[in-house]
Amino acid sequence: MSKGAEEIAKAAKSAFEASQLVSSQERSDVLLAVKAELSRQKELILEANKKDMEAAQAQVAAGSLSASLVKRLDLSSGDKWDSMLQGVVDVSKLPDPLGRVTYSIALDDGLELYRVTCPIGVLLIIFEARPEVVINIASLAIKSGNAAILKGGKESLHSTTALANCVRTALSQSRLPDDYIQVVQTREEISQLLEQDKYIDLVIPRGSNALVSHIQHSTRIPVMGHADGLCTVFLDESADPTKATRVVVDSKINYPAACNSAEILVIHSSVLDTVWPKVAEALVSAKVELRCDERTLAAIPSSVSHSGLVKSASPSDFATEFLSLIMAVKAVDTFEEAVAFINAHSSHHTDSIVTESTPNASSFCRSVDSAGTFVNASTRFADGLRYGFGTEVGISTGRTHARGPVGLEGLTIYKYMLKSGGEGGHIVGEFGTGSGKKSYKHEAIVGRLPF
Amino acid sequence: MSKGAEEIAKAAKSAFEASQLVSSQERSDVLLAVKAELSRQKELILEANKKDMEAAQAQVAAGSLSASLVKRLDLSSGDKWDSMLQGVVDVSKLPDPLGRVTYSIALDDGLELYRVTCPIGVLLIIFEARPEVVINIASLAIKSGNAAILKGGKESLHSTTALANCVRTALSQSRLPDDYIQVVQTREEISQLLEQDKYIDLVIPRGSNALVSHIQHSTRIPVMGHADGLCTVFLDESADPTKATRVVVDSKINYPAACNSAEILVIHSSVLDTVWPKVAEALVSAKVELRCDERTLAAIPSSVSHSGLVKSASPSDFATEFLSLIMAVKAVDTFEEAVAFINAHSSHHTDSIVTESTPNASSFCRSVDSAGTFVNASTRFADGLRYGFGTEVGISTGRTHARGPVGLEGLTIYKYMLKSGGEGGHIVGEFGTGSGKKSYKHEAIVGRLPF
Repeated sequence: MSKGAEEIAKAAKSAFEASQLVSSQERSDVLLAVKAELSRQKELILEANKKDMEAAQAQVAAGSLSASLVKRLDLSSGDKWDSMLQGVVDVSKLPDPLGRVTYSIALDDGLELYRVTCPIGVLLIIFEARPEVVINIASLAIKSGNAAILKGGKESLHSTTALANCVRTALSQSRLPDDYIQVVQTREEISQLLEQDKYIDLVIPRGSNALVSHIQHSTRIPVMGHADGLCTVFLDESADPTKATRVVVDSKINYPAACNSAEILVIHSSVLDTVWPKVAEALVSAKVELRCDERTLAAIPSSVSHSGLVKSASPSDFATEFLSLIMAVKAVDTFEEAVAFINAHSSHHTDSIVTESTPNASSFCRSVDSAGTFVNASTRFADGLRYGFGTEVGISTGRTHARGPVGLEGLTIYKYMLKSGGEGGHIVGEFGTGSGKKSYKHEAIVGRLPF
Repeated sequence: MSKGAEEIAKAAKSAFEASQLVSSQERSDVLLAVKAELSRQKELILEANKKDMEAAQAQVAAGSLSASLVKRLDLSSGDKWDSMLQGVVDVSKLPDPLGRVTYSIALDDGLELYRVTCPIGVLLIIFEARPEVVINIASLAIKSGNAAILKGGKESLHSTTALANCVRTALSQSRLPDDYIQVVQTREEISQLLEQDKYIDLVIPRGSNALVSHIQHSTRIPVMGHADGLCTVFLDESADPTKATRVVVDSKINYPAACNSAEILVIHSSVLDTVWPKVAEALVSAKVELRCDERTLAAIPSSVSHSGLVKSASPSDFATEFLSLIMAVKAVDTFEEAVAFINAHSSHHTDSIVTESTPNASSFCRSVDSAGTFVNASTRFADGLRYGFGTEVGISTGRTHARGPVGLEGLTIYKYMLKSGGEGGHIVGEFGTGSGKKSYKHEAIVGRLPF
């Protein structure tokens, strides 16, 4: 007897509204209770996980599922279990993102305005096979004050149910409502949840580009995520050969399947015969296949081009997220041409320039319209943990609300609290330009909420 | 020969990208040039405006248009012309919202991360009859670094064309591209512009609730605005009678047609016989029609109920934005019931409590899930100018990006700039837990961009 999509969404909104007076300390305590419950129920969870794994292996044997999915399902592989538990503790220790005053001003004597950070409301998180996402996202939601609906892939049904039970047990011992985190194993399609814009405030898809892209095109609820990670590195006229080689190679090979890996290399024509051969040699030594335009191809030393890893680029190579050891390479004649090419081809995720020119570094960072614009640094630095956020909700290529790597702050918004301490309260009719009317003071005040 | 929607949107994006190195000073200079051009072309503009007025008056005479629209069209009524010009100057003088560092941290020696405010990209502003919106929005867009497409109503065709010419002339004398602000008089339907999510980053509808609601339901581009302004005032158990009367009357009658006017009054049953009669009397004296539930109706003194302005409420009265001198009134038995009722019925715009209890004030501000939660203050204070923003883009009831009254800040987002000053640049491969690997420093740095 599963609930319908609307009922689930409505329950989440009610749980959110009922949770507004739960303190930061209580939220952290719930997280520690989740961790304790996971430890207590470890055996049950791993048994449930085994069921999912066996079903998946059968499907792999039948050729209807990829083997990599089985690995993603496995909760006992490597240090995944311990990492999952540690993640809960880490999130509980992060600074409270709620209740921070970000603007405060006195409109009049005794009339004080405070802009205070608060949760967004109800999050819908849609993910695929990895069951530990349930715990990861539940932690972030509880910490940031948002209620959440988690919709997983059917392959992880038993695992996510077992994990969800731990969360629900922890919630039931707290002042947070039981429906604060709902892990839905409903037969309802994602599309029905995506229609609940009356109750759901933000959708966060975690998974393949195909999933994210599908969701971005299927809902009126704001979506936070990125469909593509087409990052570029540009070797400027004044690029230092050592920096160029190190930055390009790291951007490409450090973790090719990540969205912050570079897929395109743009080279100023003046360094085609100086810097580029060294970079090409290093890339080919690292087993990177190069798909070159005419001029970058011609400038490659024969020793390198004989590697079998150098090919002619087709136009589609400059619009492909390879996610593997392949890089498309293009020459440009000017800095401006490079910027225009990157703005036209990058997915506005992260782009890096290698240059010794401060004016060009400055222009690049301002003119390239991406969430991250880097100077002499690998695109791989684009990451919430590396940026010092303590956690990462995802990386957004959107241009409103949150852009780039998103930490807990990205799960918050703010509200305005206005308090009159004046005799008779405060009314607008007393302000204005007529005789006897008051003017607004707009005096900065110390940013501490007085109540 | 008008451009198609896609061509218009694409031109806007190109103009945006080409504008990234234009300085704050240059932007302010463009605004002053717009003002000068408006003064220079005043006669031409008012002639064009007269044409629109005449056509509208003919339609009014034929009964196919409302008379209030003609007034909204009129650029020479009252001080509208001077206000429009002064508005341009005021916006030019506001602090630059761009280039502010909002987060800065050293990831390593010589590897510095800066989060810097920047424009969103391309705005699509859709408005109805009032032609001066062209100048208002063009000013905000130029100041905030966003390119804009302005789509007006067909009634203001000649006026907006004349105003747009002034903007274009000012742009043509600057480093901002001519297509930076496009006022489109295209026959293309709004729906075709709303499909250009590849090029347009934010839609701002300015006009009737019907327009805003239609747009919110017709696009995948983020929309900033509010469809409804259903504000409430709650008279708590400890409400002071004077404050209650002043706050309720001001919230209702100061400007009934505004979205921040109160439509619903919620009253704690313990003050039905003490505070409520005074408030009812004051409202009726101010010609406000009261639509009361059973208990609030019964508590009204006969002197007031004989005014002919007191009626029984129907359930729909608690879901109606009257925008006129009508107020729906309801009794509740507890503070919690009041909060639940407001969360269920308010449009999450602005709600106010009248109370002498600090704990209840605090709980109300946190539990009522609205953009503004006020204590002993009129809902009418919810306004960008009153909040000290210097201008108002609109009021948002959304829960992502910007909430409540929106100033220039709401037209900005941020990007991350990462700069390595290290020998050999910075690569991710040197960081980690293995031997010889570096750890991230995450040391706060002085928040000034070094380039």
